[in-house]
Amino acid sequence: MTKERVYLFDTTLRDGAQAHGVDFSVEDKILIARSLDSLGIDYIEGGYPGANPTDTDLFSRRRQYKNATFTAFGMTKRAGRSVSNDPGFRAILQSEADAICCVAKSWDYHVRVALQIANDENLESISQSIVAIKDHGREPMLDCEHFFDGYKSNPEYALDCARSAYDAGARWVILCDTNGGTLPEEIETIVTEVAKVIPGDHLGIHAHNDTENAVANTLAALRAGARQLQGTLNGLGERCGNANLISLIPTLLLKSEYADRFEIGVTPEKLRQITHISRVLDEVLNRTPDLYAPYVGAAAFATKAGIHASAILKDPKTYEHVDPEAVGNRRKIHVSEQAGRSNILSELERFNIDVAKNDPGIDRLLEEVKQRQALGYAYEGADASFELMARRMLGSVPKFFDVDSFRVLVERRHNAVGELVTVSEATVKVNVDDEVVMSVGEGNGPINALDMALRKDLGRFQEYIEDIELVDYKVRILTGGTDAITRVLVESMDRDRNRWFTVGVSPNIVDASFEALIDSINYKLFRDHASAH
Amino acid sequence: MTKERVYLFDTTLRDGAQAHGVDFSVEDKILIARSLDSLGIDYIEGGYPGANPTDTDLFSRRRQYKNATFTAFGMTKRAGRSVSNDPGFRAILQSEADAICCVAKSWDYHVRVALQIANDENLESISQSIVAIKDHGREPMLDCEHFFDGYKSNPEYALDCARSAYDAGARWVILCDTNGGTLPEEIETIVTEVAKVIPGDHLGIHAHNDTENAVANTLAALRAGARQLQGTLNGLGERCGNANLISLIPTLLLKSEYADRFEIGVTPEKLRQITHISRVLDEVLNRTPDLYAPYVGAAAFATKAGIHASAILKDPKTYEHVDPEAVGNRRKIHVSEQAGRSNILSELERFNIDVAKNDPGIDRLLEEVKQRQALGYAYEGADASFELMARRMLGSVPKFFDVDSFRVLVERRHNAVGELVTVSEATVKVNVDDEVVMSVGEGNGPINALDMALRKDLGRFQEYIEDIELVDYKVRILTGGTDAITRVLVESMDRDRNRWFTVGVSPNIVDASFEALIDSINYKLFRDHASAH
Repeated sequence: MTKERVYLFDTTLRDGAQAHGVDFSVEDKILIARSLDSLGIDYIEGGYPGANPTDTDLFSRRRQYKNATFTAFGMTKRAGRSVSNDPGFRAILQSEADAICCVAKSWDYHVRVALQIANDENLESISQSIVAIKDHGREPMLDCEHFFDGYKSNPEYALDCARSAYDAGARWVILCDTNGGTLPEEIETIVTEVAKVIPGDHLGIHAHNDTENAVANTLAALRAGARQLQGTLNGLGERCGNANLISLIPTLLLKSEYADRFEIGVTPEKLRQITHISRVLDEVLNRTPDLYAPYVGAAAFATKAGIHASAILKDPKTYEHVDPEAVGNRRKIHVSEQAGRSNILSELERFNIDVAKNDPGIDRLLEEVKQRQALGYAYEGADASFELMARRMLGSVPKFFDVDSFRVLVERRHNAVGELVTVSEATVKVNVDDEVVMSVGEGNGPINALDMALRKDLGRFQEYIEDIELVDYKVRILTGGTDAITRVLVESMDRDRNRWFTVGVSPNIVDASFEALIDSINYKLFRDHASAH
Repeated sequence: MTKERVYLFDTTLRDGAQAHGVDFSVEDKILIARSLDSLGIDYIEGGYPGANPTDTDLFSRRRQYKNATFTAFGMTKRAGRSVSNDPGFRAILQSEADAICCVAKSWDYHVRVALQIANDENLESISQSIVAIKDHGREPMLDCEHFFDGYKSNPEYALDCARSAYDAGARWVILCDTNGGTLPEEIETIVTEVAKVIPGDHLGIHAHNDTENAVANTLAALRAGARQLQGTLNGLGERCGNANLISLIPTLLLKSEYADRFEIGVTPEKLRQITHISRVLDEVLNRTPDLYAPYVGAAAFATKAGIHASAILKDPKTYEHVDPEAVGNRRKIHVSEQAGRSNILSELERFNIDVAKNDPGIDRLLEEVKQRQALGYAYEGADASFELMARRMLGSVPKFFDVDSFRVLVERRHNAVGELVTVSEATVKVNVDDEVVMSVGEGNGPINALDMALRKDLGRFQEYIEDIELVDYKVRILTGGTDAITRVLVESMDRDRNRWFTVGVSPNIVDASFEALIDSINYKLFRDHASAH
């Protein structure tokens, strides 16, 4: 039996950006888009090019994405204006998008109260917008806002809106449960009705989680005929969030009810990235990953009950609904020595570190990793620190330099003309080749000053570290209060745009930062100096 | 039309206690049980009396609960032993429970592999256990473990298990999706079949969230006939959690598909407690409440987009699927980049700040908010800083104290015995009532030291700030590198467990933290001191 193709549409960068407390930079957006593209998502909705500089910048770089159709979001042209006479609409048309998704009202009440135009004007605006997008050589789509509420209030008009788009040539007409209040059985009934008018392979679903049914609503629409599913990574989105693609994708691939009938752009091989991709978004947002997240949470395959644990070891399949490895997650049982060892081995392989499988150094390394994790270290986002530690314990990293002491001073005071100013100054005492070098640096803050002082003079190693640039610096407080444990992640880059990530942990943010900065310098020296000698 | 009664069964204290990282004390359990009882939950599953002292203690105090049926959990009696000869089973029978819920396997595979007994022995054990519970004057129930997997593998045997309990007099037979892998459409199909054999008003559903469908699965079972719904507060539970009663209850009461057909023990008046009850569990677990939780999250009725904001103020019902007040939550319109005048006005109203609609101070405030947002401030998570700023610009906050200068020193050096240690020390010079006070503080890091010094001596205001506790401290780097703009969010709490949030922004993390700490102190002084004078 040939499977029907179902298309995945990600709106993390657009609707996800509406979530409370979310503020993506263009670099954040690029990183997320790259992850989505590599996972096999069909459509990436990038934002509102033309309407804000971040999104315009993002779209200008979209050629980096190989597979996904890069989609711009905007409103249909305003009623009473021609397509070329509406500056907002023109800006979207001129953006560098592969596809354009317009949003239009499909609830007659909103047309009357919010737009204050006649129902027909709205229909006309929909079809003219779709035609214009098509004429510009972009794939046209329409988001029908408040479709389900609209349908319940005036089914004919809601359908007219959808049909206007379809008849004008829209590749997709997306039924949006904008306020998130519709329940699965209603979704299924209404989508079934709509699919009698518009073919399912032109219908999409956009669900919100306001009743905790966004995933179920999306699956209900799929069963009823819709073939484009919209959602976001980790369900990020306005209010309670959008349908969670991180939960939907494994269900579509691993549950026979769906896997036997449908095909998606994500392959079973790519599915193993999904736990990692969920974490990437958390990293970008500087959030603690949800321990309990379906499929990808650290507790998703953890079990506490003793009886279950031993039974799981006997035969995991009878206690686990899917294989944790299929989603790149792992089973967590208190006796996981074996799993740990094989994890370490596969990491060493990834860094091309040659070591015999029975080398006792591996057990010491495993022990060290466990101890450090208990202290708050996380190596998932800090490859370079992990590699340095592993190579050190296996004996291959020379000691390039030693920091004997440092001192950082931050002072706020009135300057000579009576203004309040803050100065940050750091001094370091470094030992290179048995020679003591003292350096002093100034910066915008204590960490920056320390970084400046550290990289000022490393003697004969100086030439190797001069092109290090610190491109990101993240701080996470692991427990409450200002005296809590702090984890610092530093992202560094060299002139060839190689990037590496290091970590430091301490109750003192300066110490934690110092550790990550030192790891970054040592990693660079190991890679460029040690390998050259 | 008379409504059918649906019973709610809470297992936060039993299955919720299986969640990763959860460890309830008996006081915790009592507090939670009291909340559940006052909400109108029909059954409270308290745990395993006899098996552990906490639960035995809890059950001995159960007379405090007026409405709920206090339920003990345990295994059916072991095969090959008589009821009185199985110490575990005897302990449950002797516990002070109103009802007893036994768990038994209903998947023939598990009977064979895990129990290693014959199928019939398991059936016999089920019916003898139910009869014994009934004979002891307790309400008997059976949890059919792995019912759905069992049914898919051997429907006759799974049904036999359920029927053995029902025929022996079980008040409820609960169909458990133990590994959480079953999807809503399967639940609906299978429960429909079971309800042909056992009346729905004796059938319960116990769903887990491993595919993010626990709520949908519970609703599917209800539609198919089950009349007891099991779940937990905030969906707490093993792995990805259980069906979330905090989401289910509002849906059952507020959505006409369910509200018109069914009646539950929770009244619309009690429903207003549900946001509070969700927070009680977070308090007990010392967790930050989920901002995005359906119905009860702080962002559940929040909106960011400017156009939506003005439309919501016009007519909330067309943008909100339910009234936030119905669940004890509130509408929140963000003061964010798109902030308009109407957003500011509704925020002022929320803080009970009295101001004429045409007060020119409002425009100045709007301008200030915009400028500060451009600098990196975010008031979405910092209500107290926003309120202080607004009140200051509208002229009602006195100047309590002034910080003339501060100095923070962080030093890492070798101590007398040659160990590397880091010390952090801060000095502040504060002006209170024209008197200069100098204080010094030590801490785990620069911010902690500064906080210690700041709160050491504020003269006659000292008594008002002594109970401030810093419960969370978040750092966000807004642009790349260690010289980037830093945003600090501080969460403070007083002895009455009031919480408030403040923000600071600067290229210097110490300056940014200083600003947020000062705001926190000023907010507390304004609230407690200024209002008292």
